[in-house]
Amino acid sequence: MRVSLVTSADCAAFGLEFFEALRYLSADNGGVSRGGYSAAEDAAHTLLANYASRNGLTVSIDEACNTWVELPGIDSSADAIVIGSHLDSVRQGGNYDGAAGVVGGLAMLFRLQDTTQLRRPVRLVAFRGEEAAWFGTCYIGSRALVGTLESEMLDAVSPEYRISLREALQEAGADLGPIEANTALSASKSIHQYFEMHIEQGPLLVAADCPVGVVTGIRGNYRYPAITWLGEAGHSGAVSRNLRHDAVLGATEWLTTVERLWIDEEVAGADLVVTAGIFSTDPMHHAVTRIPDSVRMSLDIRSVDVSTLQRVSEQAMELASQIASRRGLEVLVGERVDTEPASIDTDTVSMIYDTALGLGYPAMKLPSGAGHDAAALGAAGIPIGMIFVRNENGSHNAQEALDIDDFCVGVDVLTEVTKRAAQ
Amino acid sequence: MRVSLVTSADCAAFGLEFFEALRYLSADNGGVSRGGYSAAEDAAHTLLANYASRNGLTVSIDEACNTWVELPGIDSSADAIVIGSHLDSVRQGGNYDGAAGVVGGLAMLFRLQDTTQLRRPVRLVAFRGEEAAWFGTCYIGSRALVGTLESEMLDAVSPEYRISLREALQEAGADLGPIEANTALSASKSIHQYFEMHIEQGPLLVAADCPVGVVTGIRGNYRYPAITWLGEAGHSGAVSRNLRHDAVLGATEWLTTVERLWIDEEVAGADLVVTAGIFSTDPMHHAVTRIPDSVRMSLDIRSVDVSTLQRVSEQAMELASQIASRRGLEVLVGERVDTEPASIDTDTVSMIYDTALGLGYPAMKLPSGAGHDAAALGAAGIPIGMIFVRNENGSHNAQEALDIDDFCVGVDVLTEVTKRAAQ
Repeated sequence: MRVSLVTSADCAAFGLEFFEALRYLSADNGGVSRGGYSAAEDAAHTLLANYASRNGLTVSIDEACNTWVELPGIDSSADAIVIGSHLDSVRQGGNYDGAAGVVGGLAMLFRLQDTTQLRRPVRLVAFRGEEAAWFGTCYIGSRALVGTLESEMLDAVSPEYRISLREALQEAGADLGPIEANTALSASKSIHQYFEMHIEQGPLLVAADCPVGVVTGIRGNYRYPAITWLGEAGHSGAVSRNLRHDAVLGATEWLTTVERLWIDEEVAGADLVVTAGIFSTDPMHHAVTRIPDSVRMSLDIRSVDVSTLQRVSEQAMELASQIASRRGLEVLVGERVDTEPASIDTDTVSMIYDTALGLGYPAMKLPSGAGHDAAALGAAGIPIGMIFVRNENGSHNAQEALDIDDFCVGVDVLTEVTKRAAQ
Repeated sequence: MRVSLVTSADCAAFGLEFFEALRYLSADNGGVSRGGYSAAEDAAHTLLANYASRNGLTVSIDEACNTWVELPGIDSSADAIVIGSHLDSVRQGGNYDGAAGVVGGLAMLFRLQDTTQLRRPVRLVAFRGEEAAWFGTCYIGSRALVGTLESEMLDAVSPEYRISLREALQEAGADLGPIEANTALSASKSIHQYFEMHIEQGPLLVAADCPVGVVTGIRGNYRYPAITWLGEAGHSGAVSRNLRHDAVLGATEWLTTVERLWIDEEVAGADLVVTAGIFSTDPMHHAVTRIPDSVRMSLDIRSVDVSTLQRVSEQAMELASQIASRRGLEVLVGERVDTEPASIDTDTVSMIYDTALGLGYPAMKLPSGAGHDAAALGAAGIPIGMIFVRNENGSHNAQEALDIDDFCVGVDVLTEVTKRAAQ
């Protein structure tokens, strides 16, 4: 008896069952918690490995404990087409962020079982520890694969598990040698192209009424986690405007100016999003009748183009010091944390887009705002492609809502894309 | 032996000694704490009463425990000129907010001892519980005097003392009958005019290099302690601008628009100050990479003209709902707390100003941004006048800095003003 997923109904039944099994293994207060290199993540990988090998696929585990599943019987020395995503989640997160790509990749392998004309091996990889929520660093499994996990990250201690990443890797059975040496694992050496299917973590596909999207690039970001505006406190009634040094008025003027800059960049065709997620007067001292003397805020600038990140960041900081100086304030921009964008070549984008349209599915092209394992592989020089599947309510929360029909559309597109790439 | 304060040096020595005695009775961690109806405030009133009676002045205590000091021997049934301020402070506040007017009033009484041509009685009143910091309500002694202390305020419990205002009044020996009945105390019935000298709580006199100022009116305020902006959370990288409902961007746009409105009002000649002392994303949920879905902020609008308060408040709220609606946000403006402005007639302002200039002191006219006991008396229909004395570092903090020479200038002006008013 073998798994056959010829019809959409088969695919939906398979997906529902597999997602429910995953949820059952990691249910936590309405959501799921599958921490990187935790027992819950182990269980998810074991489920995948057992299900795959029981159903005729070839399973192996690499030195970083990533799980690999392969179609047997393709006798070829050609570089492989690799499909992947991750099985870990944030704490009390949703069941689909990451898992949709792994379960979808498994469904695709079953679909391709009888395809004889594949020239390249096709492999699925389920990565470990993609979410930064557990050890403060993201893409652990995929960076270990390509040899780019900074070894000082191994000493980071998880506030949740109270052990270091090194200890967690050891407990999971990893081979620390090549990881500490920043040597690419052997599984990474024969990858021709990497594709990842992932739920969209924003609302664009829902808004455009498209079940799938083609990712045009993964946005990098320049993050300022702690910008401080310093002014002078005073009685709210007793200081005239020209003698005030109001930190809130400086910070708000700046943010509205940065928003105008954003709009101008958009009009000029740049890819850009800007967020001040944290913005706060000092809770120890602020009061209704006190001129605020300090504001702490963050700024997160994202774009698929590194030149846009550089230009906007530079202009924003220049505006901040102009405004601070005009208002007699001090602005300390603090540390900047950079993540470079990952580009996807336009031929790959067109190939995936045409495939989706050819199968009769409405599709749109869109950038990925969040990071993915694909970015780690892309940074290591492996050509990447990404498919987004429509999903309501964003991600990193228990309310993620992937319609199983959209999942099946994603599997259709992924299967056809893989076939084309492997031929 | 009697106190004589003929020279400035006498006045300075007297002031320094009295302020030091007050500080000694209520020193607290570098500042002073004289809570309304507390033992520390009792001690300050006892000091005043003992010093005054020992030095030939007539002392009495009213039903609200305010202390009254009078020049003896003025045989007149005419209504009195009353000089007053308060002896309480905020917690770990400065030694001069309130006390400067009481100590200055006492110095003035000594100065006037030998003045024979006074037609009206001259009295000093030291009020109780002016600061709202202790029982959540301000002007307790002065409102009790004029019969306007809302009786429900008596049930307010001090978080510091863990007793109600009623219990605190009883402990201090007050007669609750007239206070609860909102009957004006007999001491209030023969007041011709009330003058108050107070430290400036802002930087205007320092900036203008004037030792004294003449208050043109006491700013009222329309306060919105808790305005809430509600939007929609989302991943900072995954939602395009047109699909965002960013609460911070709405609130910052609003505040910059309100600041422009403020500038326009100033250009048109209106008296106005506006402060957003509290401005904060939700500390339980905000994050660098999360589109902020809520902001809590305050807005404090102050003016000497009630029509300005009404106009600016209305326009600001209209702008808030326009911005919220354009951005797909919800804005809940919450409760508004009003304090009406107290006006000072222009003849009184001119008289005080001319007196200061006539004595050879540089002076300026300025509004009072903070409230004062004078406002309670003014609201009850008693004509008021106010003199500000230069003071560095604002008030309600241990760094208040009143130069004793400026104090003596204030006493000079107060003495001359009182003489003119009492003649």
